[in-house]
Amino acid sequence: MGRTRKFKQIPGSICAPLGFRAAAVFCDIKRLGTGKGSEKGKKDDLALIVSDLPAAVAGMFTANQVCAAPVKISAKCAAQNFAQAIVVNSGNANACTGKKGMRDAQMMARLAAEACRIRPNDVLVASTGRIGVPMPMPNVVRGIRQCAPLLARSSGNARAVAEAIMTSDTRRKEVAIELRLGDARVRIGGVCKGAGMIQPGMRQLHATMLAFITTDAAVESRYLKESLRVAVAQSFNRITVDGDMSTNDSVIVLANTRAGNRWIHAKSHERMKFQEALSYVCLELAKMIVRDGEGVTRFVTVRVRGARNAKDAEAAARSIANSALVKTSWCGGDPNWGRILCAVGYSSASMDESLAEIGYSLPGRKNVVYSFRKGRPTTAAFSTLTRITSQPEFDLHVNLHVGAGEFVIYASDLTEDYVTFNKGDITDPASLGG
Amino acid sequence: MGRTRKFKQIPGSICAPLGFRAAAVFCDIKRLGTGKGSEKGKKDDLALIVSDLPAAVAGMFTANQVCAAPVKISAKCAAQNFAQAIVVNSGNANACTGKKGMRDAQMMARLAAEACRIRPNDVLVASTGRIGVPMPMPNVVRGIRQCAPLLARSSGNARAVAEAIMTSDTRRKEVAIELRLGDARVRIGGVCKGAGMIQPGMRQLHATMLAFITTDAAVESRYLKESLRVAVAQSFNRITVDGDMSTNDSVIVLANTRAGNRWIHAKSHERMKFQEALSYVCLELAKMIVRDGEGVTRFVTVRVRGARNAKDAEAAARSIANSALVKTSWCGGDPNWGRILCAVGYSSASMDESLAEIGYSLPGRKNVVYSFRKGRPTTAAFSTLTRITSQPEFDLHVNLHVGAGEFVIYASDLTEDYVTFNKGDITDPASLGG
Repeated sequence: MGRTRKFKQIPGSICAPLGFRAAAVFCDIKRLGTGKGSEKGKKDDLALIVSDLPAAVAGMFTANQVCAAPVKISAKCAAQNFAQAIVVNSGNANACTGKKGMRDAQMMARLAAEACRIRPNDVLVASTGRIGVPMPMPNVVRGIRQCAPLLARSSGNARAVAEAIMTSDTRRKEVAIELRLGDARVRIGGVCKGAGMIQPGMRQLHATMLAFITTDAAVESRYLKESLRVAVAQSFNRITVDGDMSTNDSVIVLANTRAGNRWIHAKSHERMKFQEALSYVCLELAKMIVRDGEGVTRFVTVRVRGARNAKDAEAAARSIANSALVKTSWCGGDPNWGRILCAVGYSSASMDESLAEIGYSLPGRKNVVYSFRKGRPTTAAFSTLTRITSQPEFDLHVNLHVGAGEFVIYASDLTEDYVTFNKGDITDPASLGG
Repeated sequence: MGRTRKFKQIPGSICAPLGFRAAAVFCDIKRLGTGKGSEKGKKDDLALIVSDLPAAVAGMFTANQVCAAPVKISAKCAAQNFAQAIVVNSGNANACTGKKGMRDAQMMARLAAEACRIRPNDVLVASTGRIGVPMPMPNVVRGIRQCAPLLARSSGNARAVAEAIMTSDTRRKEVAIELRLGDARVRIGGVCKGAGMIQPGMRQLHATMLAFITTDAAVESRYLKESLRVAVAQSFNRITVDGDMSTNDSVIVLANTRAGNRWIHAKSHERMKFQEALSYVCLELAKMIVRDGEGVTRFVTVRVRGARNAKDAEAAARSIANSALVKTSWCGGDPNWGRILCAVGYSSASMDESLAEIGYSLPGRKNVVYSFRKGRPTTAAFSTLTRITSQPEFDLHVNLHVGAGEFVIYASDLTEDYVTFNKGDITDPASLGG
């Protein structure tokens, strides 16, 4: 789209940083079987990401009280200073699967560790797919064993991982950037998945999304954890597709020191630059999730300003972005600012109708067309508003004029296709989503 | 459906109680104009409901901070002991319309009062329709003047009112019952509208819904207000279609003493019976709203038990009933209890996955089929579950087993038709909803 990029983009996503290898295989975790029609879903569904060296680790996970077995294992692993590998599958969430689910997730970590010749405690596990179905372990065991010998540093393998983690996603989501830190060149790469059950809002993190980020930067583990918290708050924490929060969400970063930069810690000079780069990678990935949301046809940046405080601004923005009526009106290209005002009115944000302002602009343009100001509709023509709101991307500006609180959220519309996709077909269990 | 009814049903809805008259007319408030295709929407859109005597009044209104001009006027009127008439229109919500909106709503009350020869302060005003569009006052003025001479006690006029308040509703919603209070026969009748923007949850009340209830009972004003609070908490407060809360919701009761029963007050003997009857009328009306919800194909009674307390039970029930993913799975007839557990998990209700139970039954049947128990899926066959969840109505049973908190909510599915209806067509402004 011709936007200027803050950072130099490079190919290879998670394999772009030095010292990271990856691989993916198909082992039929969704159990499509060998019957008719199974070929359509035959894409890779199990992947490994491995660092040559022990890497500083940070992770953020779903705040859902119902949290999947792999999340429990990964949260424990990410609390350590170092880890070295990630094993991930799609097609089954291994959630609500009881004690067997925990044993299965532990076995995945153990098998991946054996295959990579590292300690089981240094392996993070991630799963995504339908909830409440036991993991088909014979397939998973075969998959991990077949995957290990394929581990390679090539960008082709990174692409295979980005594909293997897709469920309802229609596009791979990958990014890699390069930056200078002092004399060293440092790389950060990432892949992610997620299209429905998306509403991060992390005490730690909520949403059916997985994101894996690798970097060859030398970063102190404690600072890496802090940097990830900041980055997630500005990215995965600011997107919503359907307002649902998943049982499996995980964002994991591994930093393996191979770039040879001066160690980054809380007081280091390069700290801000690394933070900015990590935040950028997370935001790029997060926006890809919204743009590829289930059935999504419109990407709306909701900018709330002038709220009593930041918490109010967030409440107003989330209320707008999760309103079924606002989202369906966006689907039709209808500004319907009345529904927006209504959604702010029933949120917990303090507001006064006679002060509130609502406006629309094309992304990145300064020219905001207001539809409501000083307690009444403006004279802006409906056709002027729809010229903006019928675009695939636009910005919504809400100013409550009662304080200085601000919040931005990246939202989508709600379409017939979202419903069709998620209602599935009970006569074809393979069509049923997580 | 052959259910036994608690109360004797009688015809006539709001005109069934003695001393109430009603009328409705078409005055083109949605401004369909006289152009092509306008005939399709040419149904009555303005109505009057009048009591022959001053009546005890009670009202509950939207808790939305953005609240329409007629709501402000009616809330003030309902705080009095007595009132005598209601003027209501569909096609325009008179919300977000600034000072002109207030003047217009006041004028509606004044004109209705003149036409009925009562005081303007004794007239409640209600509006429903698109937000942010100025009221077409010449049409409204003509409508009120034409309506007054038509006022009659006939059940045909009650039906006309039930039709005049419809917007996206596909069916009239009316009920009337008769009960004995001591030696007297007392009648309670009601009409309501509402199909989208439905999620009551009243500090006082939220939802695009209007309900008008008349009774010829002699009820002390203070007790009528208390009874309505109780009735609404058990009815309109327990339904959800899309989780949105409107700017215009109003539930109004007028009680005119014509039945000649012994005065009902907080300490009277017949108090419980009247409360039960009023609650019954509200619940019947509330369920009609869910069953006629925009695009709704399934009516699900969500029964949460065993929560830490009632507040937790409510939070869990609302989280389930408002989850886009749960609602789309219901649309497909898919039990998808994993999404239900997930929605409870991200609600504010305390829960422990290893204790929670999820089951399904046909309405009113004792036989509950459990899909999840003691932290793991049961052996119930998918086909056994779908035999229940593919019915137009079923009950969902969630037991958290951590306390004694209970809550019931009446919910609907989310369908493609809901989206199609609410996205409208920006080239045909008449298709755009509130």
